[in-house]
Amino acid sequence: MQRIVVDAMGGDLAPEEIVKGAAEASIALADAEIILVGDAATLGGILPRLRHDGARVRVHHASQHVEMDEKPAEAIAAKPDASIVVSAELVAAGEGDAMVSAGNTGASVLACARRWKLIPGVRRAALASVYPTELRRGDRNDPFSLILDCGATIDASAEDLVTFAIMGSAYAGLVSKNRRPRVALLSNGTEAGKGPAAVVAAHQILLEATELNFIGNVEGLDIPRGVADVIVCNGFVGNVVLKMLEGVSETVVRLARYAHKEKLAWRLGLMALSSALSQLKAVTDWQQYGGAPLLGFEHLFIKAHGRSNAHAITNAIKVAAKAHAGDLCGHIARGVADVIARQRPGSPTVEGTA
Amino acid sequence: MQRIVVDAMGGDLAPEEIVKGAAEASIALADAEIILVGDAATLGGILPRLRHDGARVRVHHASQHVEMDEKPAEAIAAKPDASIVVSAELVAAGEGDAMVSAGNTGASVLACARRWKLIPGVRRAALASVYPTELRRGDRNDPFSLILDCGATIDASAEDLVTFAIMGSAYAGLVSKNRRPRVALLSNGTEAGKGPAAVVAAHQILLEATELNFIGNVEGLDIPRGVADVIVCNGFVGNVVLKMLEGVSETVVRLARYAHKEKLAWRLGLMALSSALSQLKAVTDWQQYGGAPLLGFEHLFIKAHGRSNAHAITNAIKVAAKAHAGDLCGHIARGVADVIARQRPGSPTVEGTA
Repeated sequence: MQRIVVDAMGGDLAPEEIVKGAAEASIALADAEIILVGDAATLGGILPRLRHDGARVRVHHASQHVEMDEKPAEAIAAKPDASIVVSAELVAAGEGDAMVSAGNTGASVLACARRWKLIPGVRRAALASVYPTELRRGDRNDPFSLILDCGATIDASAEDLVTFAIMGSAYAGLVSKNRRPRVALLSNGTEAGKGPAAVVAAHQILLEATELNFIGNVEGLDIPRGVADVIVCNGFVGNVVLKMLEGVSETVVRLARYAHKEKLAWRLGLMALSSALSQLKAVTDWQQYGGAPLLGFEHLFIKAHGRSNAHAITNAIKVAAKAHAGDLCGHIARGVADVIARQRPGSPTVEGTA
Repeated sequence: MQRIVVDAMGGDLAPEEIVKGAAEASIALADAEIILVGDAATLGGILPRLRHDGARVRVHHASQHVEMDEKPAEAIAAKPDASIVVSAELVAAGEGDAMVSAGNTGASVLACARRWKLIPGVRRAALASVYPTELRRGDRNDPFSLILDCGATIDASAEDLVTFAIMGSAYAGLVSKNRRPRVALLSNGTEAGKGPAAVVAAHQILLEATELNFIGNVEGLDIPRGVADVIVCNGFVGNVVLKMLEGVSETVVRLARYAHKEKLAWRLGLMALSSALSQLKAVTDWQQYGGAPLLGFEHLFIKAHGRSNAHAITNAIKVAAKAHAGDLCGHIARGVADVIARQRPGSPTVEGTA
């Protein structure tokens, strides 16, 4: 039984849609228990109205919550009983196996960082994100790739990038059922020597000291195509890339409309295309894939999008349950220990366990 | 009279299209002289066949040339009489005012770096590039923004980023006739404190010690919109961003087609959109805007695209002539000296002039 702790108070549509998503998951998932964290009176007023499995979903009270636009560090300090803090504490105490929240990203990452331990050998956590691609992958034929880090670690050393590669590969392997995910470093050229010092050094370590399906460097051009299943970069570059992708199909359509507003054929074409893009977005959307996993801690946190509706929350809970059932964190721990052992053949100790 | 030195042997379509572009420019530009550098016998066989102004275009012999796919450092070392090396030498010797080439990017940047001096106070050169945007700018209503660096300087310090901002602003001011270009730093958030240390420090210097129209940080989402006229980042990030933009409209169209090939209305829409995108591309293309300026040296180099045809070369020559006529390098030198003086009020000397 996977016990998934859900922050019921975080997200633009909280708590209604979060509770609804949890209720749906309690029926859809045979092997999960869902712990909804938030104001007991509020949640107790919503849950009974919804179809749910009472044996698989319960409420855990938290008297406070963090607003979407609060400053993370200040909010966490001022609200010790915030639902996201209580959620992270439940998991840290062994009362839950993984956490889901659609709330304030900074506050939820900070709550994990304050209450959870990093996996031995992992120095920095990474927030991964899926994005739609042209090529498909895995047994599920998923039309998306994973990119990490997307903002948790602005500067990343070579060792951090290698760890991100191991974490991303483990996650893609479990969630997309892709046994040998193609892992790539994002750089300014495909040659091994291209890029900043951290990328060049990470390239060598990935080639020599891991058993990942490392396909080398990819360039910006390869991102939308989906040449790699997992793209590794530091959090600054990942953030820029993701935000560009977010706005880009929108802008292409607007640009074309702007340049050619006088032609009826083009207008009709663009209307048809807008419809196609919307449907495409639905297929490849984060809503279908649960959200962004925070990787590197001893527990998994799935950060669902702030605009998540019930369906997105159900999917996030499913992904969290699946990753925990597949022992994601164990995979990562073994992968990291393995690369450290290979890099330092004389050393019997695993870095970070002192 | 602006004397523009053109590497006639560099580019996918060299030497024919390069010579043709120079011939056209000799007629179109009243105040420029064009010096075509390359094999005299070859060029002498092409130029007389073309309509040109014999008083404004002449050939300077160079017995070798660098191929598009040669390794830059090796090629430059092995071919001291390569057309790109001879071109850079002519400018360094005062026999030309600016240089244009559609050849091997690495080799041409290296030829400049070996023969030209950096402007006092400039520590690293930057290669800038234009890209199409939704919003328009300047007296010419140009539908593109400038982004720099795009690959010359992989890691950039805060001071380098500030210098890039000054250089980009000066270039946009002259070439787009945009008197107060909006300059922005690319970061992972709009707040002043967001980003790697170099970006955070550059933000402060740009606010406090320059008179640029600095609008603060922009995010990835703002790139395709064109919120800023000049976007500043290090060469690694700039390379990733540009290459993503290069492939992205292509991929959007392919993706939509892939997902919806069965629906006739969508297919028609996509055909219309492809046509719109092609026309849009023609409007906003690098061919129209001459290419990528290499900024920071005492002379200007315009790197035209490898696929440049005669029209693109003519435009690159026009841009080089316009920038030199407007004293681009003088503008940059004064801007850099000014920021150094403001940062160190007690110091009468300008850094780098020792």
